[in-house]
Amino acid sequence: MSTDKLKIIPLGGLGEFGMNCMVVQWKDDIIVIDAGLMFPEDDMLGVDIVVPDISYLLENRDKVRGILLTHAHEDHIGGLPRILAQLNVPVYGTEFTLSFLEGKLEEHKLLDDADLIEIVPGEDFTLGPFTISAIRVTHSLVDCVALAVRTPVGLIVHTGDFKIDLSSPDGKPFDLHSFAELGKEGVLLLLQDSTNADRPGYTPGEMAVKPRLDELFSRADRRIFFSCFSSSIHRIRMAMDLAWKHGRKVALVGRSMDNAAEIAQDLGYIHPPEGLLIHSGQLRDYEPSKVCVLISGTQGEPMSALSRAAVDNHKHAKIEAGDTVIMSSRVIPGNEKPIYHMIDHLYRRQAKVIHDDGTNGLIHVSGHASQEELRLMVNLLKPKFFVPVHGDYRHLTKHIEVARSTGVIEQAALLEDGEVLEVDANSIRKTEKVTTGRVLIDSGSTSDVVEELIIRDRRHLSEAGLVLAIITIGKNTGLQVAAPEIVMRGLAVNEMQIADRAREVIQETLDASSSEEKRDWMLIKEKVRADLKRYIQKSTGRRPMVMPVILEV
Amino acid sequence: MSTDKLKIIPLGGLGEFGMNCMVVQWKDDIIVIDAGLMFPEDDMLGVDIVVPDISYLLENRDKVRGILLTHAHEDHIGGLPRILAQLNVPVYGTEFTLSFLEGKLEEHKLLDDADLIEIVPGEDFTLGPFTISAIRVTHSLVDCVALAVRTPVGLIVHTGDFKIDLSSPDGKPFDLHSFAELGKEGVLLLLQDSTNADRPGYTPGEMAVKPRLDELFSRADRRIFFSCFSSSIHRIRMAMDLAWKHGRKVALVGRSMDNAAEIAQDLGYIHPPEGLLIHSGQLRDYEPSKVCVLISGTQGEPMSALSRAAVDNHKHAKIEAGDTVIMSSRVIPGNEKPIYHMIDHLYRRQAKVIHDDGTNGLIHVSGHASQEELRLMVNLLKPKFFVPVHGDYRHLTKHIEVARSTGVIEQAALLEDGEVLEVDANSIRKTEKVTTGRVLIDSGSTSDVVEELIIRDRRHLSEAGLVLAIITIGKNTGLQVAAPEIVMRGLAVNEMQIADRAREVIQETLDASSSEEKRDWMLIKEKVRADLKRYIQKSTGRRPMVMPVILEV
Repeated sequence: MSTDKLKIIPLGGLGEFGMNCMVVQWKDDIIVIDAGLMFPEDDMLGVDIVVPDISYLLENRDKVRGILLTHAHEDHIGGLPRILAQLNVPVYGTEFTLSFLEGKLEEHKLLDDADLIEIVPGEDFTLGPFTISAIRVTHSLVDCVALAVRTPVGLIVHTGDFKIDLSSPDGKPFDLHSFAELGKEGVLLLLQDSTNADRPGYTPGEMAVKPRLDELFSRADRRIFFSCFSSSIHRIRMAMDLAWKHGRKVALVGRSMDNAAEIAQDLGYIHPPEGLLIHSGQLRDYEPSKVCVLISGTQGEPMSALSRAAVDNHKHAKIEAGDTVIMSSRVIPGNEKPIYHMIDHLYRRQAKVIHDDGTNGLIHVSGHASQEELRLMVNLLKPKFFVPVHGDYRHLTKHIEVARSTGVIEQAALLEDGEVLEVDANSIRKTEKVTTGRVLIDSGSTSDVVEELIIRDRRHLSEAGLVLAIITIGKNTGLQVAAPEIVMRGLAVNEMQIADRAREVIQETLDASSSEEKRDWMLIKEKVRADLKRYIQKSTGRRPMVMPVILEV
Repeated sequence: MSTDKLKIIPLGGLGEFGMNCMVVQWKDDIIVIDAGLMFPEDDMLGVDIVVPDISYLLENRDKVRGILLTHAHEDHIGGLPRILAQLNVPVYGTEFTLSFLEGKLEEHKLLDDADLIEIVPGEDFTLGPFTISAIRVTHSLVDCVALAVRTPVGLIVHTGDFKIDLSSPDGKPFDLHSFAELGKEGVLLLLQDSTNADRPGYTPGEMAVKPRLDELFSRADRRIFFSCFSSSIHRIRMAMDLAWKHGRKVALVGRSMDNAAEIAQDLGYIHPPEGLLIHSGQLRDYEPSKVCVLISGTQGEPMSALSRAAVDNHKHAKIEAGDTVIMSSRVIPGNEKPIYHMIDHLYRRQAKVIHDDGTNGLIHVSGHASQEELRLMVNLLKPKFFVPVHGDYRHLTKHIEVARSTGVIEQAALLEDGEVLEVDANSIRKTEKVTTGRVLIDSGSTSDVVEELIIRDRRHLSEAGLVLAIITIGKNTGLQVAAPEIVMRGLAVNEMQIADRAREVIQETLDASSSEEKRDWMLIKEKVRADLKRYIQKSTGRRPMVMPVILEV
């Protein structure tokens, strides 16, 4: 038997939520499962998105056979534009996933050169030493798959994101049978979604929200504004069905909602009956009781359609007293403040706001498997080894507990980004680490990547402001030719007085320096910085960024 | 009958959470109920606390008879140091409230000049035309009161913060009888706490968490780290009781925990048995199964004791594999990310973390009345008029619905900060608005108040960085004496190249200006700013703060 090992290397998503990216390597062949983004933390100032550092893939660029996508959520595909720009390898995904991706690549002018290959569940394909089967799973999005990868050491299964929805709303059921067969065949390693590993029980199916939404539609006597994640195709279809049932026309408002609905309609996931859809400009032509507005912006994003409607700043979506606003989504942690600000504004418009605060009935369900579903999958697949994916450290820890509680698995490993797991038919073992990290993208900028140093500068500036000391030196004489100048920003209200004294402080530092010191600009800068910093701190209590500038005139 | 009206003027806390401050005015007499702070929003960079703008009180300083405190939470007393520094009026509060306040005033060197007067429930006192009774209520903190104020137009009641805890843990029951008597006497206006107005049912009492905490103490076989809000005196006492029962010594770790426990002990709210408390330095002398650490920092504050312990950076509080960390508190919205970061670190130390995520049993209860308690108070007090206090707009709206559902009240008004409600025996009416607002305090700074402009500067700097253009002009000649200099911070990675070209752009602008224009520094600055901004935006896609500086040498 060979001593060669399969390598499992997470580049993102293990030890954090988002930017999921998993490398599977056998000697000189690599496949990558998913390439997502995450949204920045509050302290990453001026950063729009965060993607995984793919140095490892770039160093091994000749080995990468392709990127396999499990589904079209941003945390699984959002890193692709940047990755393909650096490493243009074939991308595999289901029909819907690729359709979603196409728009994204088009925006980045990458579509023409991209090699997109459709995955069809049930039709296996081979990449180097790997034979891949896609298995249909259910999730909050449509056309999602798990991936079974036959490798030289054995069969590994990556679940992607999933829940086991036993009433699949699009008639494409969770493929229990294929998972059962894989289990009989023998699974060496299972990589399973940890997002809800801390939730006991079973996640309700997508259709579980319909009865309550139906009630809300019945009770509404004026306009209904229905908001959900624009990728929640099931939810969009449900809202359209309910609008039709209750005799309301539907207008789509918001670019992402428009776009998602168009793709879903093209691919047959939604079938709005003739005459259901109207243009948002026609809303004023119908009685308030005869319309339903599908609107994007559940997370209080300042420029989203719903946020703008909430402050009466949207051309077509006018919210009036007595209108009903249904927010069929969850609050993503970190977004509480903007969301509640938006809700407050909706209340000021005297709208009836139905959001998922625990008192409004079941208007939203999670797309991720809870503990009993996770246990069911482990029972079906009977893996020898287990690695939890997608989650913070505490989710990964919990997930291992949950998986162990089945009594099925032999060994589990808690991997974090960059850690390498070596796998053979009999053992798993963590070895060295590879380079990983977060690449911060400032999408407004052409240079694109934001270095940590710049973020630190921005944070420093943002917390305490800036003091600039300008010292002018004669080019020929090397002598100071003018009084020091001070520029301050974001520091304090009495900046003028402080600046006056700061000029004196600098002058004193200069006067106290020997002529030899004065010729050493670096030294002079440091002395000025130290003295000025001390004065500013004493007089204002703040620690702004202090920058001496020497100007040769 | 007089046509004079009583005025009710909220200066803070209505339409927002925190900085509660309510003015009650009868002609030339004003009393103020509470003077709280709030914590800043994420986008108030470099701001530590936010307090209400008290311009209205300063304009009417001769009329202010005193400030009445309902209890010692920061959102009710935290604004006092700043207010007393500007307006030193008598402050009334219960024994515990004043003890808490004293430490705070001492820090600000205001204690010696402060006039603190103890309120004793049952002992009425008079301020100008107002006769005030304090009525004991229950809350997450001890020694809390509602205030009944007899005014020339009738009796008004302000509940402060409360829940109706029918098993008061300190043997000081919620004074149902006094509220019943007030109801019989006839209440004109009720001002009631809206915090939990969106929660159906009844808030569990403080003792409801004891059985589950007892279980957790039984099951722990190594150290217990017990964290709660340091003001949660009931919870601290409960943890001490359980530690005693389970044979563990207790060490207090964290300044706020120490301080709160000391005051509570002085005033007889906690009675640690002889030999229970040890110094945190002694923790290493005891078996892990024999100690319980009461530690502050439930909200993931970076410098708190628990946050530091989580990254193994606390001298005495060492968390090891198998230790139990109980977080007996809620997640304050907005703090999710730091809290979950901290929890992740605790998991990395292999601690068992018990936090209030819905799966760990009842380890925390709210201190605020839910809908049935709010209805019970309305039923007891039978007010003619109703104004909800303490909450976002949506809580105030909900609270009015809840109060109306009792069928008791005649009229309700939704007031927001600065709105004036005129009250007489027969009517309430909103009239003009007074000046209100948020004063942003940068506590590290001596100048203290942060202007909106500075926050805007900081935000701008933080989002896009800074470009400074320095143009040197000869003092006597008025001519440019050196090439323009560029200073950039927080902008982009290729700052050097951009700076080179930016210098040229400025020079071109200067060269293209007439000598008349060059003498007009303001004009030149504006031209340079505009051209430079355009170039920077085009070449980097960013919109940094662009500042031209003209330097006379």
